[in-house]
Amino acid sequence: MRATVMHGAGDVRIEDVPDAALAEPTDALVVVTRAAICGSDLWPYKSMEHDEAGRRMGHEFIGVVEAVGSEVRTVKAGDLVVAPFLYSDGTCVFCREGLHPSCLHGGRYGYDGVDGGQGEAIRVPQADGTLVVLPVGRDDALMPSLLTLTDVMGTGHHAALAAKVGPGKSVAVVGDGAVGLCGVIAAKRLGAERIIILGRHLDRIALAKEFGATDVVGERGDEAVERVRELTGGAGAHSVLECVGFEESTLTALGITRPGGAVGRVGVPQNDSIPAALPAFFNNVTIGGGPAPVRAYIEELLPDVLDGRIEPGRVFDRVGSIDEVPDGYRAMNERESIKVMIEF
Amino acid sequence: MRATVMHGAGDVRIEDVPDAALAEPTDALVVVTRAAICGSDLWPYKSMEHDEAGRRMGHEFIGVVEAVGSEVRTVKAGDLVVAPFLYSDGTCVFCREGLHPSCLHGGRYGYDGVDGGQGEAIRVPQADGTLVVLPVGRDDALMPSLLTLTDVMGTGHHAALAAKVGPGKSVAVVGDGAVGLCGVIAAKRLGAERIIILGRHLDRIALAKEFGATDVVGERGDEAVERVRELTGGAGAHSVLECVGFEESTLTALGITRPGGAVGRVGVPQNDSIPAALPAFFNNVTIGGGPAPVRAYIEELLPDVLDGRIEPGRVFDRVGSIDEVPDGYRAMNERESIKVMIEF
Repeated sequence: MRATVMHGAGDVRIEDVPDAALAEPTDALVVVTRAAICGSDLWPYKSMEHDEAGRRMGHEFIGVVEAVGSEVRTVKAGDLVVAPFLYSDGTCVFCREGLHPSCLHGGRYGYDGVDGGQGEAIRVPQADGTLVVLPVGRDDALMPSLLTLTDVMGTGHHAALAAKVGPGKSVAVVGDGAVGLCGVIAAKRLGAERIIILGRHLDRIALAKEFGATDVVGERGDEAVERVRELTGGAGAHSVLECVGFEESTLTALGITRPGGAVGRVGVPQNDSIPAALPAFFNNVTIGGGPAPVRAYIEELLPDVLDGRIEPGRVFDRVGSIDEVPDGYRAMNERESIKVMIEF
Repeated sequence: MRATVMHGAGDVRIEDVPDAALAEPTDALVVVTRAAICGSDLWPYKSMEHDEAGRRMGHEFIGVVEAVGSEVRTVKAGDLVVAPFLYSDGTCVFCREGLHPSCLHGGRYGYDGVDGGQGEAIRVPQADGTLVVLPVGRDDALMPSLLTLTDVMGTGHHAALAAKVGPGKSVAVVGDGAVGLCGVIAAKRLGAERIIILGRHLDRIALAKEFGATDVVGERGDEAVERVRELTGGAGAHSVLECVGFEESTLTALGITRPGGAVGRVGVPQNDSIPAALPAFFNNVTIGGGPAPVRAYIEELLPDVLDGRIEPGRVFDRVGSIDEVPDGYRAMNERESIKVMIEF
């Protein structure tokens, strides 16, 4: 079968790889119908050292179950399923608490002999705990929005929850990528009164406004902090969604949080330490977040997607076949595209 | 009047200073009956550069109101009052949210012409928002426990709340100083099932056990992390109270927190950044805390002190007059005493 393999920075190839196949009795074999390129796929795209063997890519996909292992009970051949960006058993102590990324038997696609999602088919471990059956056809018009439930919509929702967004709250979203845009959707959905998006790409800002952003801050660094403070009566925002992960964006996020407020971090941190956290201490600012338990959120957000109450699929501004994946990476990396969907 | 003045590291003197007096219509003049030395007073005691003018010390005190300014309504001459370690107006947007340390008109004792608490009398700004009248006599046997409501008991409670302690939770307390010991009391009061204290001073550990600690970890660094993990089935504690503020204690706190758990920081951080926070991100660990809104907690905790349900005053293992304050600093700094109470 054909699948996406990264061999180094800027070097993404579509290659023939061994066909996906069941290996464990808890596996499902899924024929992929839609997949996406994630902002986090761009980290290795920027920095990976050359590796002739390569790394299988992709963790956002929807597909049709082709076969299941002998112990799988909740999905069957023919089901259209959506997968969270990590697999998880659904039964361990952490999964039962809704913290699927810490699953004791979970893992990442593309590692440990598990296929990546940007390919024609994929072996999904822990199928019962991982996959959710979708009540629509494989080419339903809602497919883009359903595909965001694999990662970015759940991740934006997680940022909003970690930042304690609620009715009447002022919210600031740092980052206008797909996750930040989904953070705007999540903040509005949770009742935020004011939603400030920090970003400077016109196409993304326009979409953020349609999703519910009330204010735009195009400045960076200290100027951005100053501007958000002006917009919030001097105190900062109650809830700040950090959707980038850079040191500078983290500094901005901490600098614009109101005393007693919270920062929800979902941008994968590029630094080991949290910088300039002393003001956060003196202001009783809470810092939360991490990899989103998307598996838990699929069930929570799915009705809103099916009813059309939220339209996160609008973050996809480019659609292509598997052959167009390498150019999709390039386009996202050059900010020419917000997010790319792959149709099979 | 006589008051405590610090002139540099290790140099604490009792001096004659101008009598405390009303200055603003919102002030109260309080004759101090009890005061305490705080662990945070030891920071300048270790590091302050010589200053001939000196710094007025003390922020934990109980006293009798001698006079009030023309706008003060809630306290009157003759009232026995307890003060939180910061003064606050009680009416600003942050005070109304229960976040008194961020009061727009609040401040610290010993700064900006305000007296310190380790002296015979003190001018208390924002008296209505700051002082709480105590329904007991000035020499009541409960005085030590009531005195802890100025800071350490409220701070331990804040750490427990920030660490999301609740019924059935496993709790680890990093630090066996007065705040850590009060954190044990708070954790037990909030229903924690298991309370692990990290410390190695026998007297403090004994007290921690009487307060409700179920386990003691005397190791430090990686060994402490290992030991707490062993005690918690490998995963770490749900709630971790960081009651020290050093880089090493912060590393330990982050290292022993269960995925999905929370660290409540109340030890004043000695570093600007939070080290090794990447695992905290991947484990969805929340980092909260800061200066405790003790003013809010006095009302919450006072009934438990008056009923004898909690006895935080047991952290005082030394009592002396104002003349014994300099030796009290020395004794606390050398870990000869947990906490010193001053009687006037």
